[in-house]
Amino acid sequence: MSRFIQIVEVGPRDGLQNEKTILSVEDKLDLIRALETAGARRMEVVSFVNPNRVPQMAGAEDIMAALPADRVQSRIGLVLNMRGWERCVSTGCDEANVVVCASDGFGVKNQGATVRQQIDTLAAIAERQAVEGGPPITATISVAFGCPFDGEISQDQVVAIAREAAALGVREIAVADTIGVADPWTVRQRIEAVRAAAPDARLRMHFHDTRNTGLANAFASVEAGVDVLDASVGGLGGCPFAPAATGNIGTEDLVYMLERAGFETGYDLAALIRIGRDISAKLGKAPASSLARAGGFPA
Amino acid sequence: MSRFIQIVEVGPRDGLQNEKTILSVEDKLDLIRALETAGARRMEVVSFVNPNRVPQMAGAEDIMAALPADRVQSRIGLVLNMRGWERCVSTGCDEANVVVCASDGFGVKNQGATVRQQIDTLAAIAERQAVEGGPPITATISVAFGCPFDGEISQDQVVAIAREAAALGVREIAVADTIGVADPWTVRQRIEAVRAAAPDARLRMHFHDTRNTGLANAFASVEAGVDVLDASVGGLGGCPFAPAATGNIGTEDLVYMLERAGFETGYDLAALIRIGRDISAKLGKAPASSLARAGGFPA
Repeated sequence: MSRFIQIVEVGPRDGLQNEKTILSVEDKLDLIRALETAGARRMEVVSFVNPNRVPQMAGAEDIMAALPADRVQSRIGLVLNMRGWERCVSTGCDEANVVVCASDGFGVKNQGATVRQQIDTLAAIAERQAVEGGPPITATISVAFGCPFDGEISQDQVVAIAREAAALGVREIAVADTIGVADPWTVRQRIEAVRAAAPDARLRMHFHDTRNTGLANAFASVEAGVDVLDASVGGLGGCPFAPAATGNIGTEDLVYMLERAGFETGYDLAALIRIGRDISAKLGKAPASSLARAGGFPA
Repeated sequence: MSRFIQIVEVGPRDGLQNEKTILSVEDKLDLIRALETAGARRMEVVSFVNPNRVPQMAGAEDIMAALPADRVQSRIGLVLNMRGWERCVSTGCDEANVVVCASDGFGVKNQGATVRQQIDTLAAIAERQAVEGGPPITATISVAFGCPFDGEISQDQVVAIAREAAALGVREIAVADTIGVADPWTVRQRIEAVRAAAPDARLRMHFHDTRNTGLANAFASVEAGVDVLDASVGGLGGCPFAPAATGNIGTEDLVYMLERAGFETGYDLAALIRIGRDISAKLGKAPASSLARAGGFPA
C-alpha cells in the first residue's frame, strides 16, 4: 500500500497575498471551490490581517460565510495576533494557523512584533482557546532557513521556538522557508532537530521555490518522515524580497513528483493544472508552476 | 573536509542546441571562455552532428581550433555516429560523449538508429579507439526515465544498455532524463541498479527541469553517492516536446544548492549568474534559472 502525503493548499492565502491584481471575494470563492473539487482537503482560505495593510486579504468574513463547514474538510485561517484569533473564532474556521517569525527583523517589519512578543501572543491565544474554546491551533515558524533582514537563522533558534510552541499544546508545527533559501541537507537536519525537541507535535513543511530548491526540500522532508506539506496551485506566491522570482512550490508540481513515485495525494493532477493556468491568466501572468507549462507524463 | 561535486557544463551544447536564435562561433567562444573563467573544468563544447540538421551546432571545427588544449581541462564533443567520432578525433577533443538512446522511438526519430544499432556504433567506436587511439569515451543513456514517443522506459532497459557500455570499456556512463520526467525516488533506484550492473564505470547524471524535479533528482543522486552531474548555465536548453517548458537544470541553481549545504563545486556563483543573464539576453529571453532571477543568499 502506498504512503499518503497530505498537501495543504495555501494558494488562496499565501499564494494570492502578494499578487498585485486584487481578486474579488467571488473570484476567491471560485478558486477555493475549484481546489476543493480537485482534491484539497485542508486549505488556507483566509488571513485575518488588517485589510488596509493587505488589500488582497480583504473579505475574510464574507469568504468564510460562503463556505459551509461541510465543504472543505478543514478551512484554515491565518492568525498573527489576538484580533486575528477573535475573527478566526467568530467566522468558524476549522483551524487557526498562528505565525511566529524566526527573526526579530522579519517579525518587526512584517507583524510589528519581536520573536518574544509573537511567542507571547501564541501563548495568550492558546490560553484563550483552552478557556473559551475555538479551533485547534497550528503554528508556522516563518523565515526558518534565512531572513531577508537578519540573514542566517540558526537551527537553535528554530528549535527553541518549536519547543515553546509544543509546550503550549500546539498540535502541528510548520517549519517555513518563507523566502526560499533552504537546501535539502539543511532541511533534513532541521526536521530531525525539531522532531527531537517537539516529539509530540506533527511536523508540516512549507517551501518556496525562489531558488529552485523547493521540490528537493519537499523530497528531503518526505524521506525524513514528514507527511504534511504546504503548496500553492499554479506556484502562486510572489516574494516581495525577490520580485522577479517565483513563489510557493506549485501544488501540481508536488503532486506530479509524489504520484510519479507512487505516493497518494488525493489530488486530480489534470484539474490542478487547469486551475493553475486559469488563476494565472486571471492574475495576468504566465503560470509559475512547471506542470502548468509542460503538462504531465505520460500525457 | 567537504565533498567535491563535479559539474559538467553542457550549456554550449545541450543548452544551445534547441535555441532558435543562432549564435555565431565567436558568441559561442565568448560563452565557453566565460564559463571557463567561472570555474568550468569539464565542458561539452561542441556536437558533431550534421549542421544542416542542427544549425546551432555548426562550427564545431572552428570552435575546437580556437580553444587550445590548455584552456578548459576537458573539452567534450558529442558523438552520435562514426562520422562524429572521426571529427571528434581530428579536432582534438579531450573526451567523446557518445549517445545511446534508451528507446527505439527516440533513437530512430533523433538519430536514425535503433537502440541496437546505437550500441553497435558505440562498440565500433570503442574498437576504433582501442586500435587507433583517440579521446576517452563516455556514454550517455538518453531518455532513460521516459520517452516522448515510447512512453515509460523500464529500469531493465537502462541497466542492459549500461552493462553493454561498461563491457565495451566505457569509463563513465551518464544516465539522462532528457525530457524531464524523472522523480527522485526512481532516480535513486536506477542509480543503484546501474551501479550494480556496471560497478567499474563512473556514474554521471543528467537532468532537465521540465517538470521542476531537476534539483530534487540531483539531490537524490548526490545522496546516492554520485559525484558528477551535468548542468547548463542559465538553465539553457529548451525541450522540443514541451515548447513552453524550461530545459536543463541551471548550473547556478545546482551550485547554489550544493554550496549552501557545504559542498564544493569550484564554480563562482556570482559569475555564473551574470553569464546566465547575459546569454539569456543574447538569446532574447528571460533567464530560465531561478538564481538568475532571485540572486543568491545571503546576498
